[in-house]
Amino acid sequence: MPMAPKPQEEGVEGDLAFSRRVPSGDNLPRDICDRCGFIHYVNPKIVVGSVVTYDGKFLLCRRAIEPRRGFWTLPAGFMEQGETTEEGARREAREEANADIVLRDLLAIYNIPRIAQVQIMYRATLSTDAFSAGEESLEVELFSWDEIPWDDLAFPSVYWALTQFRSVMDKEAIAPFTNPEGETGNLFPRKPPAGI
Amino acid sequence: MPMAPKPQEEGVEGDLAFSRRVPSGDNLPRDICDRCGFIHYVNPKIVVGSVVTYDGKFLLCRRAIEPRRGFWTLPAGFMEQGETTEEGARREAREEANADIVLRDLLAIYNIPRIAQVQIMYRATLSTDAFSAGEESLEVELFSWDEIPWDDLAFPSVYWALTQFRSVMDKEAIAPFTNPEGETGNLFPRKPPAGI
Repeated sequence: MPMAPKPQEEGVEGDLAFSRRVPSGDNLPRDICDRCGFIHYVNPKIVVGSVVTYDGKFLLCRRAIEPRRGFWTLPAGFMEQGETTEEGARREAREEANADIVLRDLLAIYNIPRIAQVQIMYRATLSTDAFSAGEESLEVELFSWDEIPWDDLAFPSVYWALTQFRSVMDKEAIAPFTNPEGETGNLFPRKPPAGI
Repeated sequence: MPMAPKPQEEGVEGDLAFSRRVPSGDNLPRDICDRCGFIHYVNPKIVVGSVVTYDGKFLLCRRAIEPRRGFWTLPAGFMEQGETTEEGARREAREEANADIVLRDLLAIYNIPRIAQVQIMYRATLSTDAFSAGEESLEVELFSWDEIPWDDLAFPSVYWALTQFRSVMDKEAIAPFTNPEGETGNLFPRKPPAGI
């Protein structure tokens, strides 16, 4: 799996000096700083987010940041330390859409192993119809199912979440979904299947 | 939330030199190396594991490592880069119990924000009755419900998973559980409620 470039503070002279080897007592190679011996354990990251509906419409945010700037996504983002997955999903809706949401239940857990991401997606509703673009969004909008900009969705998992949500929309309690059979997040969104 | 001590390679002279400040373009303080500017983003870690049954009995492992050495736990551990949550759960059963398991469905997502952990627990069965203690286990055993060593469980979430599993044992499809109401992982396991 590709190593992501490591973040370095702006304005610092000189390069980072990590090399990859197996620390004693471990069984996998890790990045270790040649200067101070710091072992950089990298674990999969958790994305938390929601399919948010209001009056039968779907809340989507147009991304103001890379990757996929200008494309439409669900309110979702990296979970932070010290919060729960539910708190993280609510925080992301506040940050990206200035929206207050009520979580209903778990919609899906998606795995994108290529980028070591686990996405935990909830079913949610807007608690009021107040929302607007947060710092990371160009615009935020409620779309009816037929208005969803399928050709301009940011990520495959946005497509998965919307279509899976739609397939159980009337069900009170659901067993959560996983990746669609055989999909690993490398294929781009397509039109929704007919008849759902 | 308490900062965990950072891992350092054995035999390296000198201390790590991280200090905590907000990097430009960010909105939370992070640990930044005073020497090279490396920004240490720390995200919640994912634990993957399973309640594994065979012939109505429950597979438990007695821990050979700290924390809670000598206490009984489910086959579970930290998810690694490049694997899915399901692959991670199967790997942990292989590593800790030399067991080959078949995952059935998602049992629960638990949040332990104090230690920034998200635990993703599956329902699973042993594919054969072959199992034995792996490197991180002192012993591995199948217990009937009444034989489970309730006083010697390693973590609250082991208790949660076993009792929640039991409450839906006969159900084909389930909506997954979360932490029991009001619990954050700080209370130690108790006897199971009567009558389940």
